[in-house]
Amino acid sequence: MPSAKIEGPKIADVEIKRVLVREITDALEKAYKLPRKVYVVLIKENPPENVGAGGELIIDKRKS
Amino acid sequence: MPSAKIEGPKIADVEIKRVLVREITDALEKAYKLPRKVYVVLIKENPPENVGAGGELIIDKRKS
Amino acid sequence: MPSAKIEGPKIADVEIKRVLVREITDALEKAYKLPRKVYVVLIKENPPENVGAGGELIIDKRKS
Amino acid sequence: MPSAKIEGPKIADVEIKRVLVREITDALEKAYKLPRKVYVVLIKENPPENVGAGGELIIDKRKS
Amino acid sequence: MPSAKIEGPKIADVEIKRVLVREITDALEKAYKLPRKVYVVLIKENPPENVGAGGELIIDKRKS
Amino acid sequence: MPSAKIEGPKIADVEIKRVLVREITDALEKAYKLPRKVYVVLIKENPPENVGAGGELIIDKRKS
Repeated sequence: MPSAKIEGPKIADVEIKRVLVREITDALEKAYKLPRKVYVVLIKENPPENVGAGGELIIDKRKS
Repeated sequence: MPSAKIEGPKIADVEIKRVLVREITDALEKAYKLPRKVYVVLIKENPPENVGAGGELIIDKRKS
Repeated sequence: MPSAKIEGPKIADVEIKRVLVREITDALEKAYKLPRKVYVVLIKENPPENVGAGGELIIDKRKS
Repeated sequence: MPSAKIEGPKIADVEIKRVLVREITDALEKAYKLPRKVYVVLIKENPPENVGAGGELIIDKRKS
Repeated sequence: MPSAKIEGPKIADVEIKRVLVREITDALEKAYKLPRKVYVVLIKENPPENVGAGGELIIDKRKS
Repeated sequence: MPSAKIEGPKIADVEIKRVLVREITDALEKAYKLPRKVYVVLIKENPPENVGAGGELIIDKRKS
């Protein structure tokens, strides 16, 4: 605590996750001014058939 | 935003997800009166060994 | 279980919450085909200074 | 409702999940004093490349 | 990490929260076998007009 | 979508929220490479009597 939970699509490259976690933690550290070790970041990856935007599945948007 | 996150068991048929996202979005649109494109719906599927109800795993309820 | 968590702005009128919960539950019931009593819906209300969209607080968007 | 969502690393042994759900439910039951059947517990398992602590992915901590 | 998020109704007495956090942490510690200091528990309190069960707001169930 | 939900203590100064949302969005944009307007950030503020760390409420840690 504090923590951040990210919900997004699949991230293929672990280096992108590495940078994302570092930068989110930088932002949290600046806001809450607690020791860096306390911040937790969770990246949640969602398949496109499980996400709807504007009432449509992402998997259907890509088709159309 | 606004968004809805659904937690439930696995859904085998993508058509059920399609209808679920559409109907959840209909309900959100009616409540919040924002442009349809802003609503996000996430469907989270949980394996039965990771869900407890009444203190028991679903996987054990099915056995008993 | 299954459940839905809604994240959105403040809803002033309890009748809107009543309809929202009923319609979200209708959609869940149709998708998961479980007894109606098992579905839980949580409505989370967020103040506009705690929500960012496109990198800006909602409170600032309204001003600009 | 009430419910608990657990976020943690992968749990290899289903017996550990079984005990975790039972004990979390015991704690909820004692706090909220509702019939045991209403409590839901979700266990979320996260791969180490999707969790950051102190600004670093768990997968990198294990290497160093 | 690991962490637990509890969603429930309002808890009037802080001693109940104190015991709930201690017992949830006991259960997490037994399951994950990590140092006790790493576990975080969040208690979320929901007003009865923001929770639906079986398609009805809690606030309406209490009336009927 | 993608979105980030931040869980932390109360933030007294709205300027800190403003910067936090901007920087979290910067990090998301760099990772997911989608148009900036799609990212949503929610800041959740928790009272110290509702957060446990290491099995103790924050409110008790401050006393000891």
